[in-house]
Amino acid sequence: MISQDMIRLGTSKSVIRELFAYGLQRSQEVGSENVMDFSLGNPSVPAPKEVQDAIIDIVKSNDPMVYHGYSSSQGHNGCRKAVTDNINKRFSTDYTQDDVFMTCGAAASLNIVFKALTSSPDDEIIVLAPYFPEYKVFIEGQGAKMKIVDAKSDMQLNIDGIKEAVGKNTKALLLNSPNNPSGVVYSEKEIKELADFLSKKAKEYGSPIYLISDEPYRELVYTEENIQFIPKYYDNTIICYSWSKSLSLPGERIGYVLVNNRCYDSTAVMAAVGGAARFLGYVCAPTLFQMVIERCVDVKPDLETYRKNRDMLYSGLTKLGYNVAKPGGAFYLFIKSPNGDSEDFSERAKAYDMLVVPGTTFGAKSYVRLSYCVDTQKCEKALPIFEKLMKEFKK
Amino acid sequence: MISQDMIRLGTSKSVIRELFAYGLQRSQEVGSENVMDFSLGNPSVPAPKEVQDAIIDIVKSNDPMVYHGYSSSQGHNGCRKAVTDNINKRFSTDYTQDDVFMTCGAAASLNIVFKALTSSPDDEIIVLAPYFPEYKVFIEGQGAKMKIVDAKSDMQLNIDGIKEAVGKNTKALLLNSPNNPSGVVYSEKEIKELADFLSKKAKEYGSPIYLISDEPYRELVYTEENIQFIPKYYDNTIICYSWSKSLSLPGERIGYVLVNNRCYDSTAVMAAVGGAARFLGYVCAPTLFQMVIERCVDVKPDLETYRKNRDMLYSGLTKLGYNVAKPGGAFYLFIKSPNGDSEDFSERAKAYDMLVVPGTTFGAKSYVRLSYCVDTQKCEKALPIFEKLMKEFKK
Repeated sequence: MISQDMIRLGTSKSVIRELFAYGLQRSQEVGSENVMDFSLGNPSVPAPKEVQDAIIDIVKSNDPMVYHGYSSSQGHNGCRKAVTDNINKRFSTDYTQDDVFMTCGAAASLNIVFKALTSSPDDEIIVLAPYFPEYKVFIEGQGAKMKIVDAKSDMQLNIDGIKEAVGKNTKALLLNSPNNPSGVVYSEKEIKELADFLSKKAKEYGSPIYLISDEPYRELVYTEENIQFIPKYYDNTIICYSWSKSLSLPGERIGYVLVNNRCYDSTAVMAAVGGAARFLGYVCAPTLFQMVIERCVDVKPDLETYRKNRDMLYSGLTKLGYNVAKPGGAFYLFIKSPNGDSEDFSERAKAYDMLVVPGTTFGAKSYVRLSYCVDTQKCEKALPIFEKLMKEFKK
Repeated sequence: MISQDMIRLGTSKSVIRELFAYGLQRSQEVGSENVMDFSLGNPSVPAPKEVQDAIIDIVKSNDPMVYHGYSSSQGHNGCRKAVTDNINKRFSTDYTQDDVFMTCGAAASLNIVFKALTSSPDDEIIVLAPYFPEYKVFIEGQGAKMKIVDAKSDMQLNIDGIKEAVGKNTKALLLNSPNNPSGVVYSEKEIKELADFLSKKAKEYGSPIYLISDEPYRELVYTEENIQFIPKYYDNTIICYSWSKSLSLPGERIGYVLVNNRCYDSTAVMAAVGGAARFLGYVCAPTLFQMVIERCVDVKPDLETYRKNRDMLYSGLTKLGYNVAKPGGAFYLFIKSPNGDSEDFSERAKAYDMLVVPGTTFGAKSYVRLSYCVDTQKCEKALPIFEKLMKEFKK
């Protein structure tokens, strides 16, 4: 008998992927221009030209023994230095390259950190709903328990709920702002409140509570003040980053873990990060792309399409009477089903060849997720369908 | 408290890496031309020009949304088809792309397979010494037990030892031919004997015993008949492959798992492979390099330097009276310490600025590993040192 758990994981259906596959099928039947597929959170803006230029230049003018060779497991010095220079410049911090561990993307970063921190099966990691569904696979896979705290009705941090949930077994709290699936950026006021509470509790218990900040969308925000840097508020912060969204490189599997240099016992935490990466078989992050990042770390993401889509949909939907969480970043809108049933909403939209993901997948059963990383035309075509749907609900 | 196991893994010293670091330090002191560093198994031949051409062509003439985008978790269709076409052509098999799962390199492949197969903490995976030291980290990490069987004195398969070791808890046997660290290619006769024995035992126990074939060196052989394809001999074979050595791409983390289509319940095994990849956070293999592999899968490795080094060292060392395992492939020589003590041999060599790895690291305490993936000049300079060392031992 082989692992039944792994067979189950390998064959379990993803609602998102199934919707996407349905969309492809409908596109063949009715033409792709007639299918409004808002299911996938896949960047719709190509990687900036600087990335292509960097690849070609590295390949043409460098030694393949270097750019295709192993890097150290922690990552190329030049790349890590470029990453910390960029952060230090923007957030007035004083990191060195030793505070960063390069990884094969955000999923790798998260698994590595969960494994590094978990020392007992009683350890709990608090996740704030709505949340990215793979969190559960990763946290439980690395041996900890996942404890869920629902967001407030505006999708902001539910400090009271967190206060109730934190206990002696709380090893970490996982923060994801800008949030997938809601697109919400947590307010500075509430992040400070959270930080104060966690500090107090850690003191009370005599052991640190880590804040794991999952930040693939950090740079995808629509007003400058929305760019947050969590270690400013809380010392025991570990950042999991990825360039999948900010440089549109999801297939290249490149990201990092940053252990804040004011984090409790940061040297031991970084050692455990290295051990966990080894344990999970991540030999090193892809070398060529570490060198690309070294050159492109300061390139800003192209937000124009996303901004246009967001503005049009958010104002259109609210005018139609929809309750939409205030979208501060990422490329998602979280829309409340007028009858509170997201499965029903998703099914009704499907009848018009418009695909939105029921929030049940994300632990929020009355909302649907709309990913607006698509052609603007599709967003224009979607609004009249939302209008028809609202009329249906009001019948 | 965070994970003490991970801290230990992250800070435990690797004998190989320490020797390598010592070599770098000595190079600064006495000049790199005077240090014979045979410690690392890192390709010394650059990736073939076809790889560079493929990268540049893909970046210049394709859509970044495709070549930097997510692939499916199993991998790009075109890449998997190219891989199976190559195998079918060379080994007269009838695989389809669904038999292959693209991974982030050999370490990922191995972890994924160990996780997919292990269903109980009693499960045992048999490893044949001498062996790659990370096997222990990976097997135990994925929840199984590692059971070691020593090789015969010529480093060939020890069928009698395997017969003693196989029992009801044997989930799999891990085969690595051409072997790291010995460079030995297992003989066809003995592989057949092994296959017959495992088939008989599986029948007796009423459950399959898998042969996991770790093949990063499959193409690095010095006579054509040494290219082996294990599924020809044994149905329940799962191949873990990587292009790190054959195309000199160790930093790019690209490889695959092939589940033989005649393997027992192969569909369930492939589903578990997919589940394990997801569980470990391997979202997909790097997309750009999947497309590179699609174009370069038929490119043959450049073996000339390795062959020259091997021939010179093997004939030189045997003439000096050294007992060296017959090197059929990879880029390693496994040399018996004249006094049977590999640590002592390595230390004595170090006094001449020649770095070879004690076999204790690989579970074979009387041999040292010499990696001849270096400039031929270094091999020429090494022989007189080996001569001096032999004289010392004879004193």
